[in-house]
Amino acid sequence: MIEDKNQSRTSLDQLGEFGLIDHLTQNFEINQKSTIKGIGDDAAVLDFKSKQIVVTTDLLVENVHFDLSYVPLKHLGYKAVVVNLSDVYAMNASATQITVSIAVSNRFPLEALEELYAGIETAAKVYNVDVVGGDTTSSTTGLIISVTAIGELEPEDIVYRSGAKQNDLIVVTGDIGAAYMGLQILEREKEVFKVNPQNQPDLDPYTYIIERQLRPEARKDIVELLKKMEVKPTSMIDISDGLSSEIMHICKQSDVGAEIYENKIPLDPQVISTCEEFKIDSTTIALNGGEDYELLMTISQEDFPKIKGNPNLTVIGYITEKARGMHLITRGEQAVPIIAKGWNAMKNEV
Amino acid sequence: MIEDKNQSRTSLDQLGEFGLIDHLTQNFEINQKSTIKGIGDDAAVLDFKSKQIVVTTDLLVENVHFDLSYVPLKHLGYKAVVVNLSDVYAMNASATQITVSIAVSNRFPLEALEELYAGIETAAKVYNVDVVGGDTTSSTTGLIISVTAIGELEPEDIVYRSGAKQNDLIVVTGDIGAAYMGLQILEREKEVFKVNPQNQPDLDPYTYIIERQLRPEARKDIVELLKKMEVKPTSMIDISDGLSSEIMHICKQSDVGAEIYENKIPLDPQVISTCEEFKIDSTTIALNGGEDYELLMTISQEDFPKIKGNPNLTVIGYITEKARGMHLITRGEQAVPIIAKGWNAMKNEV
Repeated sequence: MIEDKNQSRTSLDQLGEFGLIDHLTQNFEINQKSTIKGIGDDAAVLDFKSKQIVVTTDLLVENVHFDLSYVPLKHLGYKAVVVNLSDVYAMNASATQITVSIAVSNRFPLEALEELYAGIETAAKVYNVDVVGGDTTSSTTGLIISVTAIGELEPEDIVYRSGAKQNDLIVVTGDIGAAYMGLQILEREKEVFKVNPQNQPDLDPYTYIIERQLRPEARKDIVELLKKMEVKPTSMIDISDGLSSEIMHICKQSDVGAEIYENKIPLDPQVISTCEEFKIDSTTIALNGGEDYELLMTISQEDFPKIKGNPNLTVIGYITEKARGMHLITRGEQAVPIIAKGWNAMKNEV
Repeated sequence: MIEDKNQSRTSLDQLGEFGLIDHLTQNFEINQKSTIKGIGDDAAVLDFKSKQIVVTTDLLVENVHFDLSYVPLKHLGYKAVVVNLSDVYAMNASATQITVSIAVSNRFPLEALEELYAGIETAAKVYNVDVVGGDTTSSTTGLIISVTAIGELEPEDIVYRSGAKQNDLIVVTGDIGAAYMGLQILEREKEVFKVNPQNQPDLDPYTYIIERQLRPEARKDIVELLKKMEVKPTSMIDISDGLSSEIMHICKQSDVGAEIYENKIPLDPQVISTCEEFKIDSTTIALNGGEDYELLMTISQEDFPKIKGNPNLTVIGYITEKARGMHLITRGEQAVPIIAKGWNAMKNEV
């Protein structure tokens, strides 16, 4: 399909583990002041002075989290970094370093790993993080990518999931549901390709949603924007599993309830038109889709004038007392309980 | 074989991802002052004040790094932690936190993961590190474990691989080669078991070497001992791939040569007797075996009186100028070049 079929193939056996790491990371630059020593010793050495640090880690498994029949390896490398940085930004921190470990089977030639690492390198440059370590090993089957991301912040800047207070506004960045609908298009085209490999799909009407799936961005800009606006969210989380699941995390950890207004949820026109094409409800997709890597936050009502009118930030509801539970207020003004239907890697279902 | 066949089976599908993490980590304690927030938000929050930190990560893949037909899951969890802590100690640092991510297929019941996490928890207690994060996901085939370890140290205490100087003494902790010979015994018994499952193997003559393979320890005690003795190594590395491979790392990064004396290499009597049984040369095993997780270091000759006679530390050679290369001086006083034959996960061979 859209995969770049690289003709040149160098077997991994020719390099061995140390040669492979050296080869793949040779162009990686160190830019962060906090990185004292990157790749090349038993461990990386970092110095954050008086700052606190945040640490987060994710494991991506072939055929669970990605399908190489339509995910280009360069995009996969980029995305593997982004999904981890998103967690760092969700703490209101600056991302500074990552480690990247991969397990690969011999079916991958060196050129495939070079593509993967080119994506990792691009993401590291775009987000200005240093790649300071990792592990490269063989796998008996597919490709596995494990990324750990580290960030720094002043102790007073940290935003947990647990700080939401009654009457706080619930704010979402960008628009949601697109990554999931992009996945539906890619899955559909994969099936079409199986039946007719000569078919040239017209993906023009879906460029935005496909890009959101294949090459999502983490909202580093929002952390910077909030600082500039002098808004410190009372709670924050990144939208990886779906809006409903993230709202439930905030409500559970903050011991509060929430009301979300269906007509306030920001959707891209391509999401709406593709949902119509697939005959599925766009609100369901927005609530349960996942993988958008937008930020969901709560802010004090006093901060509303500061964010008002900013196209990056949409108020979609407010925090209530716990006893009132969590509800979606539909366009028909019905209150529907919000339940967890987020993307669940364990069950492989949406 | 020696696996504990747990009769009770709870399917992972019954729990889902969040339930699984909560369940598996519910007993984990936070003991480190530097841990501000552990599991339960987008990222862990750590505060190291003025100290520097070290970060290292490893990926363990079923049927590449471990064989569940003879590795009990509790031991595997313990070992997955230890191999990472070993890298922290090799920087002369104190280990403080770990993150643990796992990918598992549905063939593992919850009870199997409880065993694995019991081993992780035991290691965390023994080495006094906090488990502050992780990821749990499904795998299409086997079990994958990714651990990231974090440690702290004063900037002046750090020991790199690159500091070895001409005339420095080369020192190894404990004894080496045992983990590899333990693996040979386990592999042999696996083959015997395939032919005759009723056979009860007599493993008494091999208890030490089997334990070194299944449940290695990291040399936290050595980092503490060196501090007490006021010895700061000029370079240090942990022995994960084999003595020859680690010596080459130190020589390459320190721009020096080395001479190792065959008759000085510390071997346990069980290693010697098992090597005789297998008709293989014990020096070859000591040089190339790997997985011992002892420390290899170089110290200034001035520090020799401080370590002299300590049963944990054995001088096995000395650092030369680079031009002289790297040699093993045999019992017959022949100089044999040291070449890399360390354990190479990429090639699956020793």
